Amino acid sequence: MNPSDREQRVLDRIERVRRRRAEVKENRITLAHGAGGKATQTLIDAIFLEAFRNPLLEPLGDAAELAVGGSRLALTTDSFVVTPLFFPGGDIGDLAVNGTVNDLAVAGARPLYLTAGFILEEGLPVAELTRIVGSMRAAADAAGVCVVTGDTKVVHRGKGDGCYINTAGVGVIEYQGQLGLSGVRPGDAVIVSGPIGEHGVTVMLARGDLDIEADLVSDTAPVHGLVAELLACTTGVRAMRDATRGGVATILNEVARTADVAVVVDEDAIPVRPEVRGAAELLGIDPLYVACEGRFVAIVDGAEADRALTAMRRHPLGAQSAVIGRVKADPPGLVLLNTAFGGTRICDLLVGDPLPRIC
Amino acid sequence: MNPSDREQRVLDRIERVRRRRAEVKENRITLAHGAGGKATQTLIDAIFLEAFRNPLLEPLGDAAELAVGGSRLALTTDSFVVTPLFFPGGDIGDLAVNGTVNDLAVAGARPLYLTAGFILEEGLPVAELTRIVGSMRAAADAAGVCVVTGDTKVVHRGKGDGCYINTAGVGVIEYQGQLGLSGVRPGDAVIVSGPIGEHGVTVMLARGDLDIEADLVSDTAPVHGLVAELLACTTGVRAMRDATRGGVATILNEVARTADVAVVVDEDAIPVRPEVRGAAELLGIDPLYVACEGRFVAIVDGAEADRALTAMRRHPLGAQSAVIGRVKADPPGLVLLNTAFGGTRICDLLVGDPLPRIC
Repeated sequence: MNPSDREQRVLDRIERVRRRRAEVKENRITLAHGAGGKATQTLIDAIFLEAFRNPLLEPLGDAAELAVGGSRLALTTDSFVVTPLFFPGGDIGDLAVNGTVNDLAVAGARPLYLTAGFILEEGLPVAELTRIVGSMRAAADAAGVCVVTGDTKVVHRGKGDGCYINTAGVGVIEYQGQLGLSGVRPGDAVIVSGPIGEHGVTVMLARGDLDIEADLVSDTAPVHGLVAELLACTTGVRAMRDATRGGVATILNEVARTADVAVVVDEDAIPVRPEVRGAAELLGIDPLYVACEGRFVAIVDGAEADRALTAMRRHPLGAQSAVIGRVKADPPGLVLLNTAFGGTRICDLLVGDPLPRIC
Repeated sequence: MNPSDREQRVLDRIERVRRRRAEVKENRITLAHGAGGKATQTLIDAIFLEAFRNPLLEPLGDAAELAVGGSRLALTTDSFVVTPLFFPGGDIGDLAVNGTVNDLAVAGARPLYLTAGFILEEGLPVAELTRIVGSMRAAADAAGVCVVTGDTKVVHRGKGDGCYINTAGVGVIEYQGQLGLSGVRPGDAVIVSGPIGEHGVTVMLARGDLDIEADLVSDTAPVHGLVAELLACTTGVRAMRDATRGGVATILNEVARTADVAVVVDEDAIPVRPEVRGAAELLGIDPLYVACEGRFVAIVDGAEADRALTAMRRHPLGAQSAVIGRVKADPPGLVLLNTAFGGTRICDLLVGDPLPRIC
């Protein structure tokens, strides 16, 4: 099959999948619609994509690619509603900067400029806002970006949970290759950039509803430096996604469905800290579905996997990068997990929202 | 005084004003911090500007101007928390599109791309969301912009008032002249693009707390076409601002303070529909402080005012444009209102928030 046939087949498949799920069955919005799983995808396809349909939006990547003058720009947006506002290793402020920096980075862009939109709750201590904004500045400095414009709204007491933040980001795409899930093919390797699930588990524990103590901090970090190392070492990178809401499992399902391939993952190969594994077990959730805020998944030409891994491991943020699986032709659209016990199970999208308000 | 002396004097003045108000005296955020008046300006100066300080942010205009490749881009962001979500003449959806389109337009940019970040409340009827998103699409089409990327979060029932929307926007600045409040000088004319206060009064009445009936609809509209007509007819436009939160009075105060000039307005010359005047009287607020969402203030070289007005009135959205006042040298920093009764009073920034959650 030549590349253009393949591309057409993938596009047809995307269209079929979308049409199939393009109906929101619920009458009202539920927390699951914000969880990044099946309900979120249905909402996006049925409501947002349906209304806004245009060629720049339709790839539904982490950022849109725009041609402006002679430049290729990436534009992205993310709102942050995490609760609590402060947690070990970070707060809503650095999360809001790193999240948008990472969306630009995995789209192959050099992050440049951020906007910051604040929705503040009447009664929020000014000292907390000052602390949050200070974290944003520190994170922006660390990522080499500037907050260039902003907006502040205040909502009534009882609404808004203290503070919601939206950041939009603009970056410039200097990478010459083509990144995108439609380039993924059988034989490719699946790499994660570090141990997974730390952010989500840390935030859950920080709420204090569970009587679990663990020595955990959020993994919130800007990955643009690590991404740059990876892109510089090989032209074999097919696509990258940062593994936030819904975790690595949700990303892998997106890969399988969009590229019409199977993704086969070895459970033993997935880096998970023992504290995360323990806490996730008590929470009754697989770490594969838990949000990270400083990790990404890269799909890389299988022949280039070693080179990619070596480059990533040289970077402090990628020291524990690992190849966790391979792309295969069959069964298309599915993620299969080879378990530690020697079995294989399907790793599907989540239906509900086991961990609401994580980012 | 040569231009660079003048510019330096204005910059020094801005710095002095900022230092003077650079302390938030309240311990907690109040609704006034979101009203666009004194408290908002203090919050921006003391918390946001202080933390994020950089040359692109510091002009604090409606949009930041960025140099990317060979292009001049404008980037802006705005969050919308209006309640109710639907009101005569519009809803939060078209407001979110027009608001950001207008921020780009008054910065002299041609609006191109929008992002859309939704924070939805658990329990929001899906039919309402569909209607809001449909309005956004219609408004985007009318303004010639595309929504190219988005994000959806869901917050718990009781938070979020149904739906908050953030839109960030990117436009390209093709206008060759220099726009900015530091170019404003004595002798300039102050033009408003149409009758003021319709949006704010309409939303207040739509809440139904007041037993007032009036035949009013929001003025929500994209002003980029009207702005383009104005910029095409004269090189004498010094600066433009869209008169949203805090209304025309807040804009005029920004002009007076930033440019270190006096703005003298004739009350009789301000276009206000009788229904707005009547409702505002019952609400106990001056229409000059009421938000518009499809009107802007232009400061224009006095010698070019007639030409500007003629061009604006040819456009449907500017048919009722009017010169409402003049810029003078003294007293610097103040807005003076020549009242209908022959007196003169100072028209200061608002301290509280008489009309919360208008946009």
